Amino acid sequence: MTADGPPAAPPSAEDAAARAGLSAVAEPGDPVLGALLRTQPAAQVWAALRAGAPLDAPEGCAAALQGRLERWRARARGTDVDRMLTRAAEYGARLVLPGDPEWPSQLDTLAERRPHALWVRGAHDLRNACLRAVSVVGSRAASAYGLHVTSGLSHTLAERGWCVVSGGAYGIDGAAHRGALAGGTATVAVLACGVDVGYPRGHEQLFAEITGHGVLVSEHPPGTTPTRHAFLVRNRLIAALTPGTVVVEAGQRSGAMNTAAHAQELGRTLMAVPGPVTSALSAGCHRLLRDYQAVCVTSARDVIEQLSPVGTEPPAESGVRVGTELLDDTARRLLDALPERGSAGVAVVAAAGGLSPDAALRHLGLLAAAGHVERTATGWRRRTSDERRS
Amino acid sequence: MTADGPPAAPPSAEDAAARAGLSAVAEPGDPVLGALLRTQPAAQVWAALRAGAPLDAPEGCAAALQGRLERWRARARGTDVDRMLTRAAEYGARLVLPGDPEWPSQLDTLAERRPHALWVRGAHDLRNACLRAVSVVGSRAASAYGLHVTSGLSHTLAERGWCVVSGGAYGIDGAAHRGALAGGTATVAVLACGVDVGYPRGHEQLFAEITGHGVLVSEHPPGTTPTRHAFLVRNRLIAALTPGTVVVEAGQRSGAMNTAAHAQELGRTLMAVPGPVTSALSAGCHRLLRDYQAVCVTSARDVIEQLSPVGTEPPAESGVRVGTELLDDTARRLLDALPERGSAGVAVVAAAGGLSPDAALRHLGLLAAAGHVERTATGWRRRTSDERRS
Repeated sequence: MTADGPPAAPPSAEDAAARAGLSAVAEPGDPVLGALLRTQPAAQVWAALRAGAPLDAPEGCAAALQGRLERWRARARGTDVDRMLTRAAEYGARLVLPGDPEWPSQLDTLAERRPHALWVRGAHDLRNACLRAVSVVGSRAASAYGLHVTSGLSHTLAERGWCVVSGGAYGIDGAAHRGALAGGTATVAVLACGVDVGYPRGHEQLFAEITGHGVLVSEHPPGTTPTRHAFLVRNRLIAALTPGTVVVEAGQRSGAMNTAAHAQELGRTLMAVPGPVTSALSAGCHRLLRDYQAVCVTSARDVIEQLSPVGTEPPAESGVRVGTELLDDTARRLLDALPERGSAGVAVVAAAGGLSPDAALRHLGLLAAAGHVERTATGWRRRTSDERRS
Repeated sequence: MTADGPPAAPPSAEDAAARAGLSAVAEPGDPVLGALLRTQPAAQVWAALRAGAPLDAPEGCAAALQGRLERWRARARGTDVDRMLTRAAEYGARLVLPGDPEWPSQLDTLAERRPHALWVRGAHDLRNACLRAVSVVGSRAASAYGLHVTSGLSHTLAERGWCVVSGGAYGIDGAAHRGALAGGTATVAVLACGVDVGYPRGHEQLFAEITGHGVLVSEHPPGTTPTRHAFLVRNRLIAALTPGTVVVEAGQRSGAMNTAAHAQELGRTLMAVPGPVTSALSAGCHRLLRDYQAVCVTSARDVIEQLSPVGTEPPAESGVRVGTELLDDTARRLLDALPERGSAGVAVVAAAGGLSPDAALRHLGLLAAAGHVERTATGWRRRTSDERRS
């Protein structure tokens, strides 16, 4: 799922600014812009749009480009990238682009519908957070049963070190994020609005907590309010960020069914939690089980089993996946910087390892995914070999 | 699933008596007896056992036969076939054997584990009842949810002309039979005891109703009390009698899981009704969905869809499956004997068609399965071509 070989070259500052602008101009994942950006630098596309200059259409895209050009040019003229970046910085939002260390390369399977840019806000590194992640989604109008099952499932997944990815909406999404936060692993909310907008309003406090203990992600620049269409386009990201999507509770026409369809189309593991057949709110889940070959899952254990490669029993979260000898020098230095007993804060570890706090956090995330360290309430600590085996 | 070609020759009276005796001597579906009965007439096997005479062991069965012979001989000596048949007649029970018109030939797929004889009691013809039938099973310890779903499912199946086959036990089985009776189509209870014993006792009234409006079936002679082992052996019959088995509610260790395994082994359609993941009583159903590729069904419509051949939409119950030109002379005569409007009782139809009431009932069952007639509260009536199309 992740790209092989060396990562793409990091984007230049010029290209980054151009992609920031383009995120306000084209639809997320617009395939014509995707094709343009594969054949020419973002800065060049952006400059042409701003200047109203002609653009070389990629093969087969001439007519489609023509149909978009006027709209894109008008929007580009009305976009102040500097102000956009300033606003983002004020809100602690950062731009993450293909080629960046924080770019989740599993999104590359979206091919021509890959995001052109991600706006990210939160204490965690998006790529690291998604190293061991699962999407947990469902209806806004959820039953007490659905909310109960979602909280328990996400809580256990988080306790076992799995990041829960969801859409930040009322109902199942909210329960998924809350359960994950309570379980102590970063959670990722993929929004259909700007990461500073915080829709729905009633989740303001939840988004604040996710900012502190996880990541908010959006393809839309700060300040964007959500549209109905944006939710559907956003759903492909939720499906693409993880190797598997669990639909906990969904009616026949729930947006979660759309996320499920994306997951299946992308070749991800599609899972559904059953419920009473007397509940219309589980009808979508049952349809996924009957007609979409979704796997029936009833617990976090089931979910983890589905996502762990065959032969990795006991489950991956309790075993070392990367031997110490395979760690790079920086990771090993950081591991050595952790105290033998007890835990240490990021700043302390970073200083002892000779890294910036940001870089230290990124490497600690990788070390956690590899089973060497874990985050506790008081900081980071080593896992003993006994713990890794158990 | 049913045997092609002409039916086997009907058993002689001698063979019938011998098989009655053998049903008291060998385990139901004992493969060694099955092999013996394929190579020599039942009367010959029975006579040899009674006389303590040697028996030619079928190929590969010599040791197995030797291990059984003493037990079989002792039991044969203690078996009074005449008394057994008299007792059966007193209770209105009849013996149905391979080759009999009432023999459900789908049991032949059990091969060497096919029943040697069936004891049958009830107003309906077993073979006809099972022409369009589905097995509905589950745990004895059922929840209110399970009972509610089972009743509704069986009621609708019966209303649409599907015969519900189950095991006559407390819990889901009982709800399945009761729903079917209320829906107005014959229901079949496969028992692990004699058809006159009526175990469990609390279902005495239910068994009386099934005798009046359906069929009780057992491989055990009248008077046999059930054993734990007998329930497991019985389960293969429930699975084999129908093209599909639905498990409505079952814990991980429920006997219904055994029936499900038989259904799958026999190549029948295995279906499971999901329930709340918080209910241990649905855990077996969820395991069937996850690990046994059971189809997730939530309604009678789902079940009928699974069991109707592809391309027979609208569902088989509302369309003619057999054109009038394909009916045999007797069936056509009987159809002509039905009044143009309104309905007629079996005796009237039989007289008008020149048949015995039993024979008329058998043919009416076939005509109903073919969509030409239906049973109403006041007797049998023709279905108009509009009804057949709708």
